[in-house]
Amino acid sequence: MLKLDFHPSGRHVLQIPGPSPVPDRLLRAMSYPTIDHRGPEFAMLGLKVLAGIKRIFKTTQPVIIYSSSGTGAWEGALVNTLCPGDRILMYETGHFASLWREMAENLGLRPERIGRDGVEGWRRGVEADLIEQRLRADGGHAIKAVCVVHNETSTGVTSDIASVRRAIDAAGHPALLLVDTISGLASADYRHDAWGADVTVSGSQKGLMLPPGLGFNAVSQKALHAHAAARLPRSYWDWTPILKANETGYWPTTPNTNLLYALSEAIEMIEEEGLDRVFARHARLAEACRAAVRGWGLDIQCADPQVYSPVLTGVMMPEGVDANAVRQRIAETFDLSLGTGLGRMAGRMFRIGHLGDCNDLSLMAALAGCEMGLKLSGVRLAGSGVVAAMDLLARTEVHSLTKVA
Amino acid sequence: MLKLDFHPSGRHVLQIPGPSPVPDRLLRAMSYPTIDHRGPEFAMLGLKVLAGIKRIFKTTQPVIIYSSSGTGAWEGALVNTLCPGDRILMYETGHFASLWREMAENLGLRPERIGRDGVEGWRRGVEADLIEQRLRADGGHAIKAVCVVHNETSTGVTSDIASVRRAIDAAGHPALLLVDTISGLASADYRHDAWGADVTVSGSQKGLMLPPGLGFNAVSQKALHAHAAARLPRSYWDWTPILKANETGYWPTTPNTNLLYALSEAIEMIEEEGLDRVFARHARLAEACRAAVRGWGLDIQCADPQVYSPVLTGVMMPEGVDANAVRQRIAETFDLSLGTGLGRMAGRMFRIGHLGDCNDLSLMAALAGCEMGLKLSGVRLAGSGVVAAMDLLARTEVHSLTKVA
Amino acid sequence: MLKLDFHPSGRHVLQIPGPSPVPDRLLRAMSYPTIDHRGPEFAMLGLKVLAGIKRIFKTTQPVIIYSSSGTGAWEGALVNTLCPGDRILMYETGHFASLWREMAENLGLRPERIGRDGVEGWRRGVEADLIEQRLRADGGHAIKAVCVVHNETSTGVTSDIASVRRAIDAAGHPALLLVDTISGLASADYRHDAWGADVTVSGSQKGLMLPPGLGFNAVSQKALHAHAAARLPRSYWDWTPILKANETGYWPTTPNTNLLYALSEAIEMIEEEGLDRVFARHARLAEACRAAVRGWGLDIQCADPQVYSPVLTGVMMPEGVDANAVRQRIAETFDLSLGTGLGRMAGRMFRIGHLGDCNDLSLMAALAGCEMGLKLSGVRLAGSGVVAAMDLLARTEVHSLTKVA
Amino acid sequence: MLKLDFHPSGRHVLQIPGPSPVPDRLLRAMSYPTIDHRGPEFAMLGLKVLAGIKRIFKTTQPVIIYSSSGTGAWEGALVNTLCPGDRILMYETGHFASLWREMAENLGLRPERIGRDGVEGWRRGVEADLIEQRLRADGGHAIKAVCVVHNETSTGVTSDIASVRRAIDAAGHPALLLVDTISGLASADYRHDAWGADVTVSGSQKGLMLPPGLGFNAVSQKALHAHAAARLPRSYWDWTPILKANETGYWPTTPNTNLLYALSEAIEMIEEEGLDRVFARHARLAEACRAAVRGWGLDIQCADPQVYSPVLTGVMMPEGVDANAVRQRIAETFDLSLGTGLGRMAGRMFRIGHLGDCNDLSLMAALAGCEMGLKLSGVRLAGSGVVAAMDLLARTEVHSLTKVA
Repeated sequence: MLKLDFHPSGRHVLQIPGPSPVPDRLLRAMSYPTIDHRGPEFAMLGLKVLAGIKRIFKTTQPVIIYSSSGTGAWEGALVNTLCPGDRILMYETGHFASLWREMAENLGLRPERIGRDGVEGWRRGVEADLIEQRLRADGGHAIKAVCVVHNETSTGVTSDIASVRRAIDAAGHPALLLVDTISGLASADYRHDAWGADVTVSGSQKGLMLPPGLGFNAVSQKALHAHAAARLPRSYWDWTPILKANETGYWPTTPNTNLLYALSEAIEMIEEEGLDRVFARHARLAEACRAAVRGWGLDIQCADPQVYSPVLTGVMMPEGVDANAVRQRIAETFDLSLGTGLGRMAGRMFRIGHLGDCNDLSLMAALAGCEMGLKLSGVRLAGSGVVAAMDLLARTEVHSLTKVA
Repeated sequence: MLKLDFHPSGRHVLQIPGPSPVPDRLLRAMSYPTIDHRGPEFAMLGLKVLAGIKRIFKTTQPVIIYSSSGTGAWEGALVNTLCPGDRILMYETGHFASLWREMAENLGLRPERIGRDGVEGWRRGVEADLIEQRLRADGGHAIKAVCVVHNETSTGVTSDIASVRRAIDAAGHPALLLVDTISGLASADYRHDAWGADVTVSGSQKGLMLPPGLGFNAVSQKALHAHAAARLPRSYWDWTPILKANETGYWPTTPNTNLLYALSEAIEMIEEEGLDRVFARHARLAEACRAAVRGWGLDIQCADPQVYSPVLTGVMMPEGVDANAVRQRIAETFDLSLGTGLGRMAGRMFRIGHLGDCNDLSLMAALAGCEMGLKLSGVRLAGSGVVAAMDLLARTEVHSLTKVA
Repeated sequence: MLKLDFHPSGRHVLQIPGPSPVPDRLLRAMSYPTIDHRGPEFAMLGLKVLAGIKRIFKTTQPVIIYSSSGTGAWEGALVNTLCPGDRILMYETGHFASLWREMAENLGLRPERIGRDGVEGWRRGVEADLIEQRLRADGGHAIKAVCVVHNETSTGVTSDIASVRRAIDAAGHPALLLVDTISGLASADYRHDAWGADVTVSGSQKGLMLPPGLGFNAVSQKALHAHAAARLPRSYWDWTPILKANETGYWPTTPNTNLLYALSEAIEMIEEEGLDRVFARHARLAEACRAAVRGWGLDIQCADPQVYSPVLTGVMMPEGVDANAVRQRIAETFDLSLGTGLGRMAGRMFRIGHLGDCNDLSLMAALAGCEMGLKLSGVRLAGSGVVAAMDLLARTEVHSLTKVA
Repeated sequence: MLKLDFHPSGRHVLQIPGPSPVPDRLLRAMSYPTIDHRGPEFAMLGLKVLAGIKRIFKTTQPVIIYSSSGTGAWEGALVNTLCPGDRILMYETGHFASLWREMAENLGLRPERIGRDGVEGWRRGVEADLIEQRLRADGGHAIKAVCVVHNETSTGVTSDIASVRRAIDAAGHPALLLVDTISGLASADYRHDAWGADVTVSGSQKGLMLPPGLGFNAVSQKALHAHAAARLPRSYWDWTPILKANETGYWPTTPNTNLLYALSEAIEMIEEEGLDRVFARHARLAEACRAAVRGWGLDIQCADPQVYSPVLTGVMMPEGVDANAVRQRIAETFDLSLGTGLGRMAGRMFRIGHLGDCNDLSLMAALAGCEMGLKLSGVRLAGSGVVAAMDLLARTEVHSLTKVA
């Protein structure tokens, strides 16, 4: 009989860029008794999470909650707003942007890749002027949507979404703005309304700290108009019956009650800390992580400091070092999981997640595991990244015990 | 701040036909730490549940596990096997069969309703000769699939799936057989291979005793051939990348790790008891429930004793009694949730679930709540259904403490 | 490897008069992380539970919380207030009163049994006039304490403590009044201050709904004076260092932090419902249970309706029926645990607990299990106790969903 | 309403020398349903833990399990073996040894302190020749027992118990050997039988990784003989009724069922890893911790490398630094709890626990918190202890993923 608690003595350290470690408080909330999803108590839960998740997206417009992974929410964004054969512009910031483009093709859309070529394109954020330029060239408004990834999980790059909206507007183009912030939500600042996103896609297992299983679509009025005209076949993902049932706190199909309990609790946790403090905490831990990478004398995957991600940091290996061998050594010796390099970065980097339920000492645990594992793997380091990170954290210390005070 | 544990002193009694009560053992399994879905430990979990779920479906062929509700798995069955505009025959056994037909229309298929008209059609199982007759008339094989519901959750009718397969074969028709056993799996006997189903659809929140959040497609080789030619747009639901990733125990997108833990544990629970004993337990409790309904002098919704469901029992109200008022009275007074009448049965019946983690005394608790609530609602009863159910249970007593012995 | 979750499909029904079923809410509270018992967060917890438990005892005087079973708290009451060789008067209401007397002997006290002889004495409450008479005869005040059991768990008799205080006062006797309400607290009305108890002993695993592991001594000023002069050896149980540490929310030795979390939550649960409503709920369920026993034509162990216990009901077997064989049959067939007959009642009765996290339907489940099991054991019943209990519960229905309203 | 989950974002780091962090696996075991402590399932649990705990103590003789803190088990050891006024020799290794002596006085024994005077005595282990010398001088065998602490939690010193037994034997003295290994059991090697202990005292909240609430007495045949003649008053702690009930897996009073579940699981966890590997893990982490202290240029409280504790390390502050101010700064800034200096070491040191559910990275997290906090407190450090600890851990790396392999 397989033991489900795979890990040996002491706590396993999960420091991949999602799923992030699920806090015990959310596990406890997930264990509330499953109730009748058609009963009055459920409606109270439903209305609460539907209202709360809007505050996390910084929107006053509807947010759809799907029982699905984040990938499902990508599909929701596309099938609810587009017609077969529609052209859409998809900016390639990394592996996940590529996967979304594949999905668009699978669904019968005609996606057009935009962005710099090669590895370099994966080390920078969205360059909005490229989008503006392309849209200006589309006089006939054949392009129906622009798709960008806010926080690219494969690289550790957080793009400027407001600039994309400005680019679309500057081009006077009616295309919808569809944004993936699956790994950005509740970790990096995100503003669905203020930044003019039409559909924002997210998932539960990152900044929201839940297990995987919920996908989100925040929508705009413009997206709802497009929805009315969209003709891709849709049923499970269809916003209309969901929005109608949501009015009274219900869903048309059986919702994942236990994850909604956890979502309710996660929103409370985030709002107790305060969204701004959550963002500041992520930014500070990310800075400490980068201080460590620099201390080791290694390269950060993101080449533009303006768009460093507060969620994860990609660590480049020196030539000739297999990043996956390093990761495996670290996992086997220190029970620490790191993210692998994806797509064209496979074997060349690993990714350190510092999102969700993280604090100074959980980051230090991860960095110590990395530093020891790098040395054991024979990687020559310029110095102690751990010491560099401690210097930064101590210099920027934060009084942590806010709940007791 | 909303309390998520809504219920007052003493345990809430959830006796709807799904979600069924989640046993503590599964809640504990759900609380194992979320791990890297790309790491070696995950593969062990993945391979284990993928193998185990086949035994529950009684198949040696692949079973797809989706992060979705059961409705999503309906969509998976259709988009993976059919082409836009395909004709399919959908037998109407009740409300859920109707909803599946609506979905087929939404997805651009051309479903044809089959089955008796009116309320009577909802009180009986699938009549396979109607299907055979219709397929014989379809000389050009325009009909691509026959869709039937094994256990109709809205009524409490369990149809004979093997007879449907025989009918298709007797007609010499190549249509696929798509079966919904969302509420039947692991409660009523089901045999994907032996009964010749091509796609069997199920969900996690019924006989498997999990919270909602996982959907299933068991497939046949014939279904996989149809899949290769199917042209409905698909991406999230696409079997191909899932089957490929599943070979090594993984998923192409982020799976719901914590529900897979619970699934692993649920399969262990079911196999410790033994599938046959699980079915016998459900059948016996269902019989006790029907004894109670008869004891009250009320009608069972299912009019054909051959197809009584072991999962739930529909209880018809006498003329002039609003079933929902009775349900509400019961819920408010006895903290007992029952299923409402759906679709054309709204207000005319309520449904007692007796599935999943149920035993003699949990059924008796529910029946006592019903009997008291019916009386308090002014329904005149012929006698004590509770006494009738106790007679049956005592007469057919089962030594329960198998684990200790 | 022994499975710790011993029970088969469906929920085990624990209906012994303690430990009572631990609600999930308390299990969740028990799972909060263990913290430094010398840190500032702990003090907040400590001060909270020390204040809250006073309200449950209805006292403004100190309550000592021990890491021990209730038996340990008995010892605490004796060693803190008495000297070697002291005479104490101990009223025998049943088996637990006898055990307390044995303890007093073990500790070097000279207990004197008081109360009616034989089985009859175990079927009635404390007769305060016997105490008054005895104390009047003790002109030299050799008797240092009077010990009585408020709710005798072995029989289901709840004695009138206020009458005992009146008897002591009427005799003009200075003896301390020591009361055991281990199984009464938070189920039956109890008033430490108003009833003039000097030490009240209780435990965690009954009305407080926790697992076993905490014992309580509520004390009076008079008890504290006796404490100053008491000379039985004491260390672990010594009130003085505990009271001193408690002033700032701590304990002198390592307290059971996780049970204190559960205690904090239990007090919240009880106060959300309201102590009076808790008592009314217990009283009503007890009445329904007795209605069932009468419906079966069996005798209630407690022979005096004035002192029926709201916590448990003793059910006498007819001559020639072995109560333990009946209990075993019920346990094995219906996975229902009932209390055995203790001491001189062994084999002659069983006990149904209806305390703590109980409601109408959990009682009905238990009564149904009893009724079926009695019949299967060949006990001839006058009628259906289950029907009698349902009649009572329906006639006295209570709107249960107070939290939602 | 006080939040019981006091801590802010990210996991609280509990690194005091007990209670140690309770692993989730034990919290889950603690949540199994409380069962009838007189039923057959309980006996299976009881027999299992009674057998298992013997293996942890390395004894074939009985081990008593109390519902109490470790302090209660101290009392059990004394009252079960001694008579009022008995002389006992108590070696003072630190604060906890002093507290045990106070208890002996409270209970009416005549303890005699032995050991070096002043602070120096607290920085070394038991010197067995002092004991031998004293016993040789006790020609009349007035001394009835020798009490020593195996692992002194207040200082981080682990004494050689076998040498004490040799000393007693060399003196030809019949005194009992009573040993406190409350914080040593299951972290430091301990051999009740081989080392000739007569009573070994322990508790649940240290190496066993449980919450506080269970105390232990492992006994020898000689202790049982002394027990038969011992005349200190006893009841709750009396071994006789417990041993009798234990024969069939029960306890005479209500045991703490839920902690026994956790104990059962803890024994499984420890034996899965293997006791020797558990000890080796503790020893290696302790060595890394001491490497850090030396790296900081600070003194280790224990002055004798032969008796360094594998359980905790006492860190001396330089003159003029208030250790408690440092601890508070660390707690408030890094959410890390360390142990305070006790008794005569108050304010002069803090203690780092590295026991129970610890691994390389949890230790590194704690050391990073210490290093940053020391610097923020203005303590001048010779270098990075964190780097020194990483060097040691990497140099002595252990393949951790034994369960997967």
